[in-house]
Amino acid sequence: MSDARPIGVFDSGIGGLTVVKAMRDLLPHENLCYLGDTARVPYGPKSPETVQRYAIELAEMLMRKDAKALVVACNTVSSVALPLLNEKFPVPVVGVIEPGAQAALQATRNGHIGVIGTRTTIRSGAYERAMRERDNNVRVSSRACPLLVPLIEEGLLDDEVTDRVIARYLGPLVADGVDTLVLGCTHYPLLTRAIVRTLRGQIVLVDSAQNCARAVEQMLDQQSLRSASSDRGELHVALTDAADNFLKVARDALQLSFSKIEVQSLP
Amino acid sequence: MSDARPIGVFDSGIGGLTVVKAMRDLLPHENLCYLGDTARVPYGPKSPETVQRYAIELAEMLMRKDAKALVVACNTVSSVALPLLNEKFPVPVVGVIEPGAQAALQATRNGHIGVIGTRTTIRSGAYERAMRERDNNVRVSSRACPLLVPLIEEGLLDDEVTDRVIARYLGPLVADGVDTLVLGCTHYPLLTRAIVRTLRGQIVLVDSAQNCARAVEQMLDQQSLRSASSDRGELHVALTDAADNFLKVARDALQLSFSKIEVQSLP
Repeated sequence: MSDARPIGVFDSGIGGLTVVKAMRDLLPHENLCYLGDTARVPYGPKSPETVQRYAIELAEMLMRKDAKALVVACNTVSSVALPLLNEKFPVPVVGVIEPGAQAALQATRNGHIGVIGTRTTIRSGAYERAMRERDNNVRVSSRACPLLVPLIEEGLLDDEVTDRVIARYLGPLVADGVDTLVLGCTHYPLLTRAIVRTLRGQIVLVDSAQNCARAVEQMLDQQSLRSASSDRGELHVALTDAADNFLKVARDALQLSFSKIEVQSLP
Repeated sequence: MSDARPIGVFDSGIGGLTVVKAMRDLLPHENLCYLGDTARVPYGPKSPETVQRYAIELAEMLMRKDAKALVVACNTVSSVALPLLNEKFPVPVVGVIEPGAQAALQATRNGHIGVIGTRTTIRSGAYERAMRERDNNVRVSSRACPLLVPLIEEGLLDDEVTDRVIARYLGPLVADGVDTLVLGCTHYPLLTRAIVRTLRGQIVLVDSAQNCARAVEQMLDQQSLRSASSDRGELHVALTDAADNFLKVARDALQLSFSKIEVQSLP
């Protein structure tokens, strides 16, 4: 059994392209439709109810493109809307939280895991909950890092100001003794180098984009939804508002190639 | 002639409260209805078409509260939507660009003015256009400062990281020789102290909030719309999504008092 329909991937903006990049590497024959809600980005500071409403609108837009599965390439949405999306849509839905939580539990040696993300993600406690469901003894220290997304979108990936902000956010987690750190926002893999520099290799980083791509692969196999094509799949990128500066930053940093970007208005 | 109806003030989020603060000080007897679009903040990175659509929705919500005038307490909206709002609504509309541009022209000695703001405001060239219409010989150097709003919303009003970011943004403008700087974003008055510290008093700051309040006063007098009451006017604050951390930052920094905040869903 195989299935050439596209996988629908969505995010509040452009950060989810880190998940697309990981999926392109791991699942090169799949067709992908990416939808970024740049008209209403960022979701991080918004309330769970608002984020849920937006998530359903985006998922509906991708279902109209005949998506065989939905990938929520956004920690904020994954943290508050996954059960709702699973209930509303008849296709498998994969988020970024469960795969990241699982990978962190496998990586930790001392049972103390750090999580960084947007305010809404951290406040939701979704990572902590997902980890505790698997291992009730794990200790989780989390921290909202609201400045990291703006710094990334400004293209300051290797910059002294960014390094200082990272040091300030991560200092207390390091002092607290975490040995594993979940990058709980799809933007953050773009800061991997800067974070490694700050942590001086003391801590294992768990990249939610890569782990999400692995979870998608597993789901496709379990549900017999893989594309049978041996050609490279297509990547279609749509945004709800004209792309700004950050699209260039992300495309360059991720070395992603896609042709024109469709601007798809919200209903 | 007098008019007790409220003045409707709107912004993409909470930054416009700096304009409210200036209006409360200058026009204490007016009733004010503030509407902040926190469900879709920030407008800075969004396209002009999207910002125009949002502005009309917000203005309609305020008109339903029987506003006698509309104040656009947002540079991004003022830079792209003022003519449209003037055309659509039967009440006077005051923005922040014209008053700021006028004040800057009065302040400059060497005829070289700096403007800082969000990407959309700067890209629109609205300040430059407004200044040139009055004085064709003025020289304008402008710079988008996308990190300042996130830093302010994080509450880092007096912080070494913020000072460094300001120095980096303003360095080239200072080197260029501007003698006057327009704070072309309603958030920025909250950074006045930090900016003065960085500039070491060399440059005159033009605060768009204060100048907007003065323009509102003038308009009320010209159109005989002042409230005749001698009581302190009421301030009603509504947001399109639950308030986050920044409301506390703004309320404390501005020493504004208002009772409960209404959450008013978008249509």
